[in-house]
Amino acid sequence: MADHMSGIRPLRTGVIGASGFAGAELLRIAAGHPGLDVVFASSESLTGVAVGDKFPGLARSYPTLALQPWASIPSHLDAVFVALPHGVSQSVIPKLNAGIVIDLGSDFRFDDPLTYEAWYGETHSAPVLMSQFAYGMVELRREAIAGTTAIAVPGCYVTAATLTLAPLLAAGVVEPEGIVVDAASGVTGAGRDPKPSTTFTAVSEDFTAYGLLNHRHTGEMEHALSQSAGTAVELLFTPHLAPMNRGILATCYLKPTGNQTTDDLLQVMGDFYEGEIFIQVSDKIPHTKATLGSNSVHMTVRRDQRTDWVVAIGALDNLVKGAAGQAVQCLNVACDFPENTGLESAGVYS
Amino acid sequence: MADHMSGIRPLRTGVIGASGFAGAELLRIAAGHPGLDVVFASSESLTGVAVGDKFPGLARSYPTLALQPWASIPSHLDAVFVALPHGVSQSVIPKLNAGIVIDLGSDFRFDDPLTYEAWYGETHSAPVLMSQFAYGMVELRREAIAGTTAIAVPGCYVTAATLTLAPLLAAGVVEPEGIVVDAASGVTGAGRDPKPSTTFTAVSEDFTAYGLLNHRHTGEMEHALSQSAGTAVELLFTPHLAPMNRGILATCYLKPTGNQTTDDLLQVMGDFYEGEIFIQVSDKIPHTKATLGSNSVHMTVRRDQRTDWVVAIGALDNLVKGAAGQAVQCLNVACDFPENTGLESAGVYS
Amino acid sequence: MADHMSGIRPLRTGVIGASGFAGAELLRIAAGHPGLDVVFASSESLTGVAVGDKFPGLARSYPTLALQPWASIPSHLDAVFVALPHGVSQSVIPKLNAGIVIDLGSDFRFDDPLTYEAWYGETHSAPVLMSQFAYGMVELRREAIAGTTAIAVPGCYVTAATLTLAPLLAAGVVEPEGIVVDAASGVTGAGRDPKPSTTFTAVSEDFTAYGLLNHRHTGEMEHALSQSAGTAVELLFTPHLAPMNRGILATCYLKPTGNQTTDDLLQVMGDFYEGEIFIQVSDKIPHTKATLGSNSVHMTVRRDQRTDWVVAIGALDNLVKGAAGQAVQCLNVACDFPENTGLESAGVYS
Amino acid sequence: MADHMSGIRPLRTGVIGASGFAGAELLRIAAGHPGLDVVFASSESLTGVAVGDKFPGLARSYPTLALQPWASIPSHLDAVFVALPHGVSQSVIPKLNAGIVIDLGSDFRFDDPLTYEAWYGETHSAPVLMSQFAYGMVELRREAIAGTTAIAVPGCYVTAATLTLAPLLAAGVVEPEGIVVDAASGVTGAGRDPKPSTTFTAVSEDFTAYGLLNHRHTGEMEHALSQSAGTAVELLFTPHLAPMNRGILATCYLKPTGNQTTDDLLQVMGDFYEGEIFIQVSDKIPHTKATLGSNSVHMTVRRDQRTDWVVAIGALDNLVKGAAGQAVQCLNVACDFPENTGLESAGVYS
Repeated sequence: MADHMSGIRPLRTGVIGASGFAGAELLRIAAGHPGLDVVFASSESLTGVAVGDKFPGLARSYPTLALQPWASIPSHLDAVFVALPHGVSQSVIPKLNAGIVIDLGSDFRFDDPLTYEAWYGETHSAPVLMSQFAYGMVELRREAIAGTTAIAVPGCYVTAATLTLAPLLAAGVVEPEGIVVDAASGVTGAGRDPKPSTTFTAVSEDFTAYGLLNHRHTGEMEHALSQSAGTAVELLFTPHLAPMNRGILATCYLKPTGNQTTDDLLQVMGDFYEGEIFIQVSDKIPHTKATLGSNSVHMTVRRDQRTDWVVAIGALDNLVKGAAGQAVQCLNVACDFPENTGLESAGVYS
Repeated sequence: MADHMSGIRPLRTGVIGASGFAGAELLRIAAGHPGLDVVFASSESLTGVAVGDKFPGLARSYPTLALQPWASIPSHLDAVFVALPHGVSQSVIPKLNAGIVIDLGSDFRFDDPLTYEAWYGETHSAPVLMSQFAYGMVELRREAIAGTTAIAVPGCYVTAATLTLAPLLAAGVVEPEGIVVDAASGVTGAGRDPKPSTTFTAVSEDFTAYGLLNHRHTGEMEHALSQSAGTAVELLFTPHLAPMNRGILATCYLKPTGNQTTDDLLQVMGDFYEGEIFIQVSDKIPHTKATLGSNSVHMTVRRDQRTDWVVAIGALDNLVKGAAGQAVQCLNVACDFPENTGLESAGVYS
Repeated sequence: MADHMSGIRPLRTGVIGASGFAGAELLRIAAGHPGLDVVFASSESLTGVAVGDKFPGLARSYPTLALQPWASIPSHLDAVFVALPHGVSQSVIPKLNAGIVIDLGSDFRFDDPLTYEAWYGETHSAPVLMSQFAYGMVELRREAIAGTTAIAVPGCYVTAATLTLAPLLAAGVVEPEGIVVDAASGVTGAGRDPKPSTTFTAVSEDFTAYGLLNHRHTGEMEHALSQSAGTAVELLFTPHLAPMNRGILATCYLKPTGNQTTDDLLQVMGDFYEGEIFIQVSDKIPHTKATLGSNSVHMTVRRDQRTDWVVAIGALDNLVKGAAGQAVQCLNVACDFPENTGLESAGVYS
Repeated sequence: MADHMSGIRPLRTGVIGASGFAGAELLRIAAGHPGLDVVFASSESLTGVAVGDKFPGLARSYPTLALQPWASIPSHLDAVFVALPHGVSQSVIPKLNAGIVIDLGSDFRFDDPLTYEAWYGETHSAPVLMSQFAYGMVELRREAIAGTTAIAVPGCYVTAATLTLAPLLAAGVVEPEGIVVDAASGVTGAGRDPKPSTTFTAVSEDFTAYGLLNHRHTGEMEHALSQSAGTAVELLFTPHLAPMNRGILATCYLKPTGNQTTDDLLQVMGDFYEGEIFIQVSDKIPHTKATLGSNSVHMTVRRDQRTDWVVAIGALDNLVKGAAGQAVQCLNVACDFPENTGLESAGVYS
């Protein structure tokens, strides 16, 4: 399918849920991706509205595209991205007929319906499909993604924490239990629908925690990290809302298993991601802003000899590597495009 | 001295270091405090500049006050607030002649020079004075502050973490070791001097950690909390910079000693602060913005049965309760003014 | 009624529309006003919710107050503030029985229904009441406000532009026509109801204009300024939305009538507001942040000899001097309290 | 030179002044431009620092590039971008030996030294070079730029105002005098050096004006617009600082010459920019955020019949179309690359 890249025929692509943050970010990234031709974009609430009227920044990229109900999707598309609220894609995806389906929601991230039901508190309506989805954490599952036709893109917090901690757990240098993941996200993580908690006046000059103890990304982090660790991982996750648009910083606390130093741990992390174009391991502390607009993850790690904690920190743009960018990275791998096609490693701010 | 409040004669007051954030906030609070008459304000770099020219918002409150070098301070003032960078007040305070001295810096927060030197990496130049200072964490040390003439105001992060954790440690419901204090602060915590890291462009849309492993407030937190716990407390402290002006949120992780529930822990916290006008214990998660401009601390606590962690969260305005407001609260206690004189419990944002 | 201030009995006060920005700001200001005792606060949508649950920053100030429907207001209150959306107070106020009514909405700002209908495009339902309201621009109408029992508080933009331009028009040094008022406001000016245009993500990092050509405050500015000028004033008003919570800066362009210099015009402005505690005239350019949380207006003026324009600039906090603070200032004048009771001239930022 | 685009050999490129906002933005854009290979980047203050250490977001794009003093530039480069403070490039550029020089500063924007000296108050040190520079306002001067080897990129405010007003002045539908340009910019317009006025705490929650009456961009606007108008244009320019990183919105007031309606004026504007890929004319009001990260200009116009003003509004990203993006657009035109090579029309926010 790499011949799409030489311009023979880009993939006829649909974006279901194009008016949300992740969907619109898909449109933005697809506009610069030579292998994608977005011929369909859906929004139930904005049916008939031109993409360029809703998103003036995309007017030139999509001069003729208007939002439609998802059910009016053409009968066969080469690729369909689904960016719907949790619980909705399980009713939509079974009805799709597409070459490849990439779901940005949470419905198909678990292999089995029981784990889903434990964290989401509801029965899954398409349980037999769950095992058909590859879990789209590219740097950890590249081989499972290559050539597949159904991909579940990980959650934003999950991507930040899992990519940061996987090297340490895989190497066995930290304990799989007693982990704390303390993270902060920009407000795009809360979705585009206006809510009292997402107004400028609520968010600006405020910092707060939410979802204490049982945020649903906890189960997904444990699930993904357990595979890296080869044993059950248990962690407490505390998300915070920071007064910014984009960005997640995950500050993670773990107990070391041995006497590795900071340098040892940086080496473990660096070796694990050797050759990865979107992972940047450094002894410097990551800034979310340096990743803004890019598909990169910046990470570091420290060992505190005094209190015997390991601190690992990862940063990314929640709408790119935490959603639409990772989705496109998955498609690139699945369709044998160069992995960074349409994706930036450089952030907008420098 | 309560007769000052009936207008007989307010305290002739000086503010040394009035051009920094804490010093200017002292001027703002003093402007509304009937017991304080600021007759002197110093700044070495802005000597001769009118307060109202540097701070237009204070022009009406101080129509005739100009900044002077600190050494030109009148020979005797009733009260002097010292808001100087770390390490400077130890050389200034021995030369002062004042009824009461309230130091907002870190030089006199420890009783002994050894602890100071361990965390600050330098010899203390006025060690004999250290034991004369009461530690100004009012809710925990009110009796030691009443009637004293030298007060060291606690650090901003220290106030947030210590007031949040003291009830739990004092009650013995959490372990004194293995504690993690993960906190975020607005940028006023970094001081007013322009630095690359405090420009709007560096801070806005960014969230990052700093001072990993050995931030100096760690020692002060351990020192203050050990007194509450009655045993040595050890903790790891990770500060973060959030893109906002004011506010600290401290999210703290501790191991429970028993099987207390969330309700039990809320009860411990609420009972401990019974009757305190500036402490607000609630089952709701605190927002820094609700404390903006006030001297209040909002706090809550949770017990996670699944992972066996206790999460305690506290919020305050770092320039008020974390600096100038707490300093005035100390003075109110020391001088027998009503404790909330000049101080708001209501935040500016509602 | 000044005896209220010596503590005999504060005014039993109601706030109708207490969950909006202006209403909540009234609660905040009233909490520090010794002459006001808020015994009633209404919200149709949050009936039964405790004030402290909706606004944690006010929990200590109003420990027992819960929001109620406006119709359950006690049969007689000494003072009632009405902070309802445009068009609603004209149906509520006729039903009130109160010592003094202060309306923060736009319904009673004009004397006659025709002007109202021209700018608001609808018939006024209580036209006979219109002439009973004093227009609460205190610095321009103090005598009309003293002793009255019905006051219409001016709009936020109107206050900024009118107070800035009135001295120049009254002195005849600028033309009454061809005026441009170009202003920017923080997002609290758009009300608290969540809308797509007021989410953090829409507002942050954005600057835009709105209400081009026919914003309703235009008519009110012309009306108020015509009285200062003694002749009909005509102006074009362009509001902008700035990514901040509070603050209005009005930058106004006018044609000079004579050859006054910048110094002459500053003199005209300064003389006009001689002795006013909330007006600060200066040759320095105003910053909205210096007024944050205060009832102050900062202003300046310039004459450009090259292009023959006069530029006059004024800044204020739209929720204080532009709404709740000015409302309390009106009440203070009407009830013979000291005019600055409960009001700050110093901004929170210094 | 279009063969560079097919990969034969990209231009060996230098960036002088790479640590400032415009210089770093050039590095970011060049990283995605297949015709540019940045082999040299200078900074006097950060000599020896790796680009990726100063700008972590660019670490992957420039793994081996370190900042050097400008004088160590290789003896011949194909292209050199100069992003130095005003007044400096006139001493640097005469010493350069490069295929094409593109200056982002103000030194070579005027044809003659007298106009330069009038606005900048100093003698030009390289007056004979001034006439050799093409003025890089691509949409207005494309033919003069094609094939040239020296280009002066217009100022950020100038680009916003000039592109917005040129169609109206060229068509003669507005008067060339009595124009007001009232504009707001994000803080990157003030340069990266930390200053009291550019700290987060100074900028956030503030809106203010600066450079009243005589901002240097005034002369450049008049110069550029006079060429479009075919007669001398005179205007008053008032810049404001908005609390955001990037973006300029210029709101311009002009007197109509005839009775054109809003629709007529939109038609004039739209026709003028027919076929331009980076100009978006619409009846919708532009938002700076929609242009963030893109090289686009969004604009609209209105005619107010009541007050007889024309209001024209334009928005752009000051670091892209207002600086580095326009510089690259100039290079693309000069070197016969497709004009949008390396440049986005879609903004990062959608």
